[in-house]
Amino acid sequence: MNIDVLTYNENIDPALFIGRISVVIDVLRCTSVMTAAVSHGAARIIPVIEPEDAFSLAESLGRASCVIGGERGCNKVPGFDFGNSPLEYTESAVRGKTVIMSTSNGTAAISAAQKADIVFIGSMLNSNAVAAAAASCGKDILILCSGTNRKVSADDYCAAGSIIKKISESSADFVLSDAALICVHLFDSLINGSFDLMKTYHCHRLFELGYGADIEYCLQDSVINVVPVWKDGEIKAN
Amino acid sequence: MNIDVLTYNENIDPALFIGRISVVIDVLRCTSVMTAAVSHGAARIIPVIEPEDAFSLAESLGRASCVIGGERGCNKVPGFDFGNSPLEYTESAVRGKTVIMSTSNGTAAISAAQKADIVFIGSMLNSNAVAAAAASCGKDILILCSGTNRKVSADDYCAAGSIIKKISESSADFVLSDAALICVHLFDSLINGSFDLMKTYHCHRLFELGYGADIEYCLQDSVINVVPVWKDGEIKAN
Repeated sequence: MNIDVLTYNENIDPALFIGRISVVIDVLRCTSVMTAAVSHGAARIIPVIEPEDAFSLAESLGRASCVIGGERGCNKVPGFDFGNSPLEYTESAVRGKTVIMSTSNGTAAISAAQKADIVFIGSMLNSNAVAAAAASCGKDILILCSGTNRKVSADDYCAAGSIIKKISESSADFVLSDAALICVHLFDSLINGSFDLMKTYHCHRLFELGYGADIEYCLQDSVINVVPVWKDGEIKAN
Repeated sequence: MNIDVLTYNENIDPALFIGRISVVIDVLRCTSVMTAAVSHGAARIIPVIEPEDAFSLAESLGRASCVIGGERGCNKVPGFDFGNSPLEYTESAVRGKTVIMSTSNGTAAISAAQKADIVFIGSMLNSNAVAAAAASCGKDILILCSGTNRKVSADDYCAAGSIIKKISESSADFVLSDAALICVHLFDSLINGSFDLMKTYHCHRLFELGYGADIEYCLQDSVINVVPVWKDGEIKAN
């Protein structure tokens, strides 16, 4: 079986996902938020592309049962309950709720991967759990890095590398593409300190905007044992 | 000014290149062949997409004045003079000749970049010369890695990294995208031995097919002081 990585989400052919298991990653911060929210008891997450869709969906579902979150330009959308900080999605805020999310990159990437047999929501936070779930499917795995503004984002490579490394260590059945090998190398380099994520665009931008605590949170490796799965437009625990 | 890298050639928007300087890279082996051929005195190189176009073009130009080269599936196309090994394009073979080339990945990538203000042909072999030429243009630089079979090829990342590193070392005027930073890190890792290109798909495949000497040749860093430039369908020394 093969593991490949689409290094950013731009003009991706949806047919690439057919017959494969997909893991969608947007470390900073969409899929990290989703991982945190599901681990804190959110009943489901519904990703929507446009912010205005979030408001109308919440009204139709019952506003009090919903939490609306996400960002544009890294900041909270006016009228949303929360922005795109995983630290906001606490147990008291989301338990039993429907979380409706619209973000610049991650929610579009999830939509791009929808022809996959299964779409897992991956992050650094749940790398081990996602690796185990993906490997157990016994199929080719195609990881989609969301990227930032239709360009490569190094943080996504690192999380992809973490997941791929854990799959490789648990099974010799997978052949790694060049993109997969590069991601693993970048993750190893992050861990041994030879690659500095803080010099990269998105980390630098978030830090400047005051979201340094989010970066620190999102770059924790394998601290949440939850695997969110996208199915029929909703994300729930596997 | 900015340096960015398109990490493989698939569904690239040609408009991305408008107003920018481009460097097209296909280390194994198209742009390495082009670099070698130009350094050995080829009058010009004409890339063509389809092998049959190479034959008809050679006939129209005068078959004796031309050398036809390239590959499909890594091997020489039947009827071509040469395959895709830079070692074939010696001075005695190419001096004063028109080299017509058709390869699986590199020639298509050159075509994809044609809206750039200037299209340089880059490789590991001429990294320093290409870096100096690109930096001196005083514009944003967009490097296109050809990839292999519409997927990421780690050798292209390494050559891109070598070129970007040399640009960065000679000028503080350029801001590196995440993709550019990743490429530089991969090049550094190749040099210090922490990343093994021989485990990657294309290196492994070429080695199995008996082209190990080509890999060794193509991975020499900055040993040729020539900058091929694509203009109006032809590649010549800058």
